[in-house]
Amino acid sequence: MDSQRLQRVMESMNRSQSSQMLLTSPSNIFYLTGISFDPGERFAGLLLARGEAPLFFCNRLFPQGEDSPYETIWHEDGEDPFRGVVNRLSRSAPLAVDKDCPARFLFPLLESSVSLANASPLIDRVRMIKDVKEITLMKEASRLNDKALGFLAECFHPETTEKELVRKLDEFYSGHDSSFSFAPLIAFGSHAAVPHHESGHGTPVPGSSVLFDIGGRTKGYCSDMTRTFSFGQPGPKLKEIYAIVLEANLAAESVIRPGTPFSEIDRAARDVITQKGYGEYFTHRTGHHIGIDVHEFPDVSLANPMAAEAGMIFSVEPGIYLPGECGVRIEDLVLVTENGVEILNRYPKELIRL
Amino acid sequence: MDSQRLQRVMESMNRSQSSQMLLTSPSNIFYLTGISFDPGERFAGLLLARGEAPLFFCNRLFPQGEDSPYETIWHEDGEDPFRGVVNRLSRSAPLAVDKDCPARFLFPLLESSVSLANASPLIDRVRMIKDVKEITLMKEASRLNDKALGFLAECFHPETTEKELVRKLDEFYSGHDSSFSFAPLIAFGSHAAVPHHESGHGTPVPGSSVLFDIGGRTKGYCSDMTRTFSFGQPGPKLKEIYAIVLEANLAAESVIRPGTPFSEIDRAARDVITQKGYGEYFTHRTGHHIGIDVHEFPDVSLANPMAAEAGMIFSVEPGIYLPGECGVRIEDLVLVTENGVEILNRYPKELIRL
Repeated sequence: MDSQRLQRVMESMNRSQSSQMLLTSPSNIFYLTGISFDPGERFAGLLLARGEAPLFFCNRLFPQGEDSPYETIWHEDGEDPFRGVVNRLSRSAPLAVDKDCPARFLFPLLESSVSLANASPLIDRVRMIKDVKEITLMKEASRLNDKALGFLAECFHPETTEKELVRKLDEFYSGHDSSFSFAPLIAFGSHAAVPHHESGHGTPVPGSSVLFDIGGRTKGYCSDMTRTFSFGQPGPKLKEIYAIVLEANLAAESVIRPGTPFSEIDRAARDVITQKGYGEYFTHRTGHHIGIDVHEFPDVSLANPMAAEAGMIFSVEPGIYLPGECGVRIEDLVLVTENGVEILNRYPKELIRL
Repeated sequence: MDSQRLQRVMESMNRSQSSQMLLTSPSNIFYLTGISFDPGERFAGLLLARGEAPLFFCNRLFPQGEDSPYETIWHEDGEDPFRGVVNRLSRSAPLAVDKDCPARFLFPLLESSVSLANASPLIDRVRMIKDVKEITLMKEASRLNDKALGFLAECFHPETTEKELVRKLDEFYSGHDSSFSFAPLIAFGSHAAVPHHESGHGTPVPGSSVLFDIGGRTKGYCSDMTRTFSFGQPGPKLKEIYAIVLEANLAAESVIRPGTPFSEIDRAARDVITQKGYGEYFTHRTGHHIGIDVHEFPDVSLANPMAAEAGMIFSVEPGIYLPGECGVRIEDLVLVTENGVEILNRYPKELIRL
């Protein structure tokens, strides 16, 4: 736990004249307390109020609450876990709550006549600038992911299934004190044309895509990378769209430096794909920030005018998806530096045959 | 998709004079549309309004939206996904939202001056009474889980690790068109004394607990069962608490019939454990409802005065946890019938040595 993080969050509350904030997402709690646990449907929360010491609310079922650097207010199953929170709230100011807070935690607050505000500007904008410790951990996580990608490519064989590779990858991460940061997307042939394909019983299709979109969570921080291979000699369509997606990936990465708007980073990738006539097959934003969560605020899209700043880490992942045929996505994580950009993934990007 | 479900939900809205409801949880959407997908951070929602046809809001990234039995209103990344919802809302009545709806979907609604209400009484109370099709699927899922438990017991060997068994179990479910309904809790020795232990590198401890709390999701419906074994000859403490937990499990199951309050079901289990002097080591509620979600409304606890009704399916899972030593939990899923109860799990409950 880093007390500078709390200080940055409190400064951000001061600047926006926000006087009270309740954080309930496991990742926000981890960011500020160092405690890592998921209370599932049960309530856990960190209450921050200007001029007061933070309070941590925790169910007795989760002994991790003992490790809180702040005072812990305990409750048990069967008790009203919100009484302690509601009693401490000011009615004269809005309560900021984090964006993932489920409605079931908000109803008791709304009933107590507290008005709600979005805590995202207070906490997500602090978290989007990674501190030195976080940058070190993110680099470590991505180095492991480079190895994981190489391991997967070695495991590949013509009779394998998507699901078999998912299990091998699980063993790999697990053997490296890591675990999935998201359900890995391992997609063969036309499955690669579905950006959110669920890895299943698919087997490799000669001449078509073998897409690996994988990430691990290591020491609390996420990696996320995509590479697309060809099973054997690539078909002409796969070869063509691969070259375009690679050009788009490099074009986007080449414009990243402090001050570049995210809309321009997206546009750099999108323009390449559109000019080659495949604009309608690049159906998603170019990327997303990442850290403790695999998807963090903000996204890298045409709709985001915010500018890149040193210390930000996000994905650059253009793709072309030809329904029923094949798909290509090439994704790196990148770190914005004082002068430019550092690409955190080093796995090769040319089209490799498996 | 079962049109009777929509009818029951609309009747429930009529009875409570609730005129509009937005459902965003993948399980509520699955319940009413038959569409199974998780849009992650992206918005998908089913808008129900009295006297109007349901509308399904979906991001173009998820082609599953094509399968909606109701009109689909599409949006794309970069567009405001809430405009379509907000435009259709009445300002003169509260909007009921489901309990898992994340705050980020609620802020744009609150900004539009709509007041929010809890949809739980409308949707959760319909879902808590399973229909015939659901009961069939829940029985199927639990039958598979009985087999999965037997498979795990066969896989067990003295040098195994918790994590190794998790992977074997993943293969088992996967080979039976099923997948984890929750992260399996496989806990050896003193790990079994942590009700929410994360399965890891632990190896079996002679004379101590081997606890398997496992469940799969099959055709959209969840199983959930716990059995505790002894590794070799059970130590005296394990033997003692096993007998008490089994008595508590049977005591609770014996009082279940239409009309029994959930508080009494909890009390039946808790009284046994308390009378033997272990009350403080039974640190959680006795159970929870289950269906499409592994934890559904309501819970089986002292705090819940609601009465059991025919068609309800929930867990009965008392436990005793001796920190640093061992732990026992015995959990079945049960179905309330017209006259009594049917236990859905058939795996033996006596203390078995592995």
